[in-house]
Amino acid sequence: MTSVGIDAIEIWTGNLVLDLPNTFAPVKGEDPEKYTKGLGLHMSSFPDVYEDIVTMGANAAKRLMERKGLTPNDIGRIDVATESAFDNSKPVSTYIAGCLEQVFEDDFRHANKGERKFACIAGTQSLDDAYNWIKAGRNRGRAALVIATDTALYERGDPGEATQGAGAVAMLIDEDPDLVELSTEQGYGSMDETDFLKPNQQFPSVDGKRSMQVYLARMREALEDYESVAGRTHPDDFEYIPFHTPFPGMVRKAALLGFRHMSRDTEIEDELESEIGRQPREADFETWDDYEEAIRAYMDELKTTEQYRDWYARVIEPTLDISSRVGNWYTGSIHIARASALKAAAEEGKDMVGKQLLLGSYGSGAQAEIHAETVQETWLDEIEALDVDDQLAARTEISFDDYELIHDVHNHEKEIEVEEFSQPEAEFVFTGWGRMNERRYEYVE
Amino acid sequence: MTSVGIDAIEIWTGNLVLDLPNTFAPVKGEDPEKYTKGLGLHMSSFPDVYEDIVTMGANAAKRLMERKGLTPNDIGRIDVATESAFDNSKPVSTYIAGCLEQVFEDDFRHANKGERKFACIAGTQSLDDAYNWIKAGRNRGRAALVIATDTALYERGDPGEATQGAGAVAMLIDEDPDLVELSTEQGYGSMDETDFLKPNQQFPSVDGKRSMQVYLARMREALEDYESVAGRTHPDDFEYIPFHTPFPGMVRKAALLGFRHMSRDTEIEDELESEIGRQPREADFETWDDYEEAIRAYMDELKTTEQYRDWYARVIEPTLDISSRVGNWYTGSIHIARASALKAAAEEGKDMVGKQLLLGSYGSGAQAEIHAETVQETWLDEIEALDVDDQLAARTEISFDDYELIHDVHNHEKEIEVEEFSQPEAEFVFTGWGRMNERRYEYVE
Repeated sequence: MTSVGIDAIEIWTGNLVLDLPNTFAPVKGEDPEKYTKGLGLHMSSFPDVYEDIVTMGANAAKRLMERKGLTPNDIGRIDVATESAFDNSKPVSTYIAGCLEQVFEDDFRHANKGERKFACIAGTQSLDDAYNWIKAGRNRGRAALVIATDTALYERGDPGEATQGAGAVAMLIDEDPDLVELSTEQGYGSMDETDFLKPNQQFPSVDGKRSMQVYLARMREALEDYESVAGRTHPDDFEYIPFHTPFPGMVRKAALLGFRHMSRDTEIEDELESEIGRQPREADFETWDDYEEAIRAYMDELKTTEQYRDWYARVIEPTLDISSRVGNWYTGSIHIARASALKAAAEEGKDMVGKQLLLGSYGSGAQAEIHAETVQETWLDEIEALDVDDQLAARTEISFDDYELIHDVHNHEKEIEVEEFSQPEAEFVFTGWGRMNERRYEYVE
Repeated sequence: MTSVGIDAIEIWTGNLVLDLPNTFAPVKGEDPEKYTKGLGLHMSSFPDVYEDIVTMGANAAKRLMERKGLTPNDIGRIDVATESAFDNSKPVSTYIAGCLEQVFEDDFRHANKGERKFACIAGTQSLDDAYNWIKAGRNRGRAALVIATDTALYERGDPGEATQGAGAVAMLIDEDPDLVELSTEQGYGSMDETDFLKPNQQFPSVDGKRSMQVYLARMREALEDYESVAGRTHPDDFEYIPFHTPFPGMVRKAALLGFRHMSRDTEIEDELESEIGRQPREADFETWDDYEEAIRAYMDELKTTEQYRDWYARVIEPTLDISSRVGNWYTGSIHIARASALKAAAEEGKDMVGKQLLLGSYGSGAQAEIHAETVQETWLDEIEALDVDDQLAARTEISFDDYELIHDVHNHEKEIEVEEFSQPEAEFVFTGWGRMNERRYEYVE
């Protein structure tokens, strides 16, 4: 059986940018370091008035198809992952296919289109479905297009307002992939949780403290489940570990948990013994609470060690770069984390061929998934084709007043006319509603 | 590679029933035969005040798991297909898993949960994803639970009000299935259409005429696409052809189109030549409109022939029985059509082992999918285990006034307190909202 994985990836950011420490924090009366140091966020991307999940997704997909020299006939499956859908029946993939058919010669008439929803993890779920479809021998030589697209907006005044963002990631899943091969092995941690939800509402209800605990608990379970099929993991097995990144600060906690788990019973634990002692073992404690307390104390020490700090700087830090400049992209978040890491490797001139990544995806509600990826021979060409730095630099900066307007524009409950802040160029744009209230799109040169 | 398909199926109807010709038609001032003859509908199922897509799905899944002697550890994947979701982020599968964990010993901690949306075709898409997951070798011996659950309600006064319904179908997808094996071959017809959609609204906007044209056009394309990989089809290849059944009248049109397509260039066309001539060929017409006109005229003749009527009575009519008694179940609709057919076969004492079904799924927006299924040796045990007739007989009949109240109860825009019309027994019920606006559930003995 040939290998299956991600053949190419393209990123499309919302065209506007809000400076968090310098524009947002002062109006909120907050210390700018809450953003830059605490959350690890410098900027958030926002969609202009003519942008939405369809335009961002279609723009990313168009770039990807053009770069790889594909026509719609080469695509057998289009899945969109989003938690920002604006229709309860018709999937976003049909709108995106309709956009692409405006600019490509043939059509997606025989492609299976779909939409997946599970908070931020649906992008990875769609990737897995596409992988399975090819492995099951149903693709007839065609590739799958997976598009993770979201406008991550919170209610004005909600603490989550600090971590907003908007953008899309398009991925081509194919046999003999040019970027990374996916592992057959997967691990899941998944329970019915009330940490973050959107009951008949556009903006989420969030229990911030619970959300953080649940993220870590599910991630630990997913890692244990992954190890039950793929064997023990070791911190040095993986060149990078991209996690779902609602904000980089969250990943600091997940990374520490992962390192502690993976280094248990290894030479790393031995080396650290003289400095911080050995890891607490559950069997040595009378209650689970005592054990948890001891684990927390151990981790507080662990994160100050040189071994951990070196590992974090090498394996985790490079995954956070794009995220810190665009905010939370929900379903796209882990996929920009992978791109960040590979981009850093390219910039450092690292030889990545054959190297392993471990991916930790997460969706509130709640589920984590862990799988591994193997970097392919042609990875560098794929990563060098990304224009993400140019895109981010080309965003139009908005003032706080502009931000307030743009938040209202994208609020489904409000009807407000606002002039666009930027000039669309060579991209799909939203042009208004049709007679059945359907959203309509056009390509502008 | 072992065969993969549907191991077991369970149906759960909403607990209320509305008599369309005798209760609904008189108040609407309509001829009862509009329902019984025109649409082919006698009754619609409705959810009582304590029911929703979660309770119906969880109830169907519980029956299925108990009957097959399964525990949560046997399940590696739970996908819910619905176009009636009440949350824009947290998937219905997490709520259903939470319900099931109240009554089973272990939990679904390592099962991948998800939710798919594409109008009525998402149930079949979820089935396919589960099939692919097993074929890709990722299931670790576990089965997948696919649950299609919907409350198909229309705006009061909308023509679609005649075709409402509510219910869930749970299916177990496994290796060496007990009911039917799915074909690897699939055909798709899929285009970006504005025929039926729910833009930020619970009830659909429908262009009825367009919707019918689109259903037929996509179904024809899907059949052609299926034939391109599986070879020519013939009307006698399939014991039954279950279609998506928004109402049985729609299937009459799809069946005629299918028969015409499948009988072209066969001995059936030869036999019918003296009676109604040969099928029009596109090459013989100057314009597409002239050709279409000729096809329509041919089909008007075709449907009166004994050959067609015999085939329809044998291959299509048995698929419509449950649907005519419950209305449209959206994602579950085609799966009750399959169950209807196999139930009819069981009642007639037909030997179905090794026989083929052809499934024609459809979702507005719009996409059709065609695949084949092979009936397995143990099919009869599975079908005889269904208690659908008892369930339908046990529904509580509602008056028109009751119907108006129950429609308001399930309208997300309204807050209304209504006494339940029936007594829940040995089933999951909705008990109210939690502090984050999450819906809460309990099992009542």
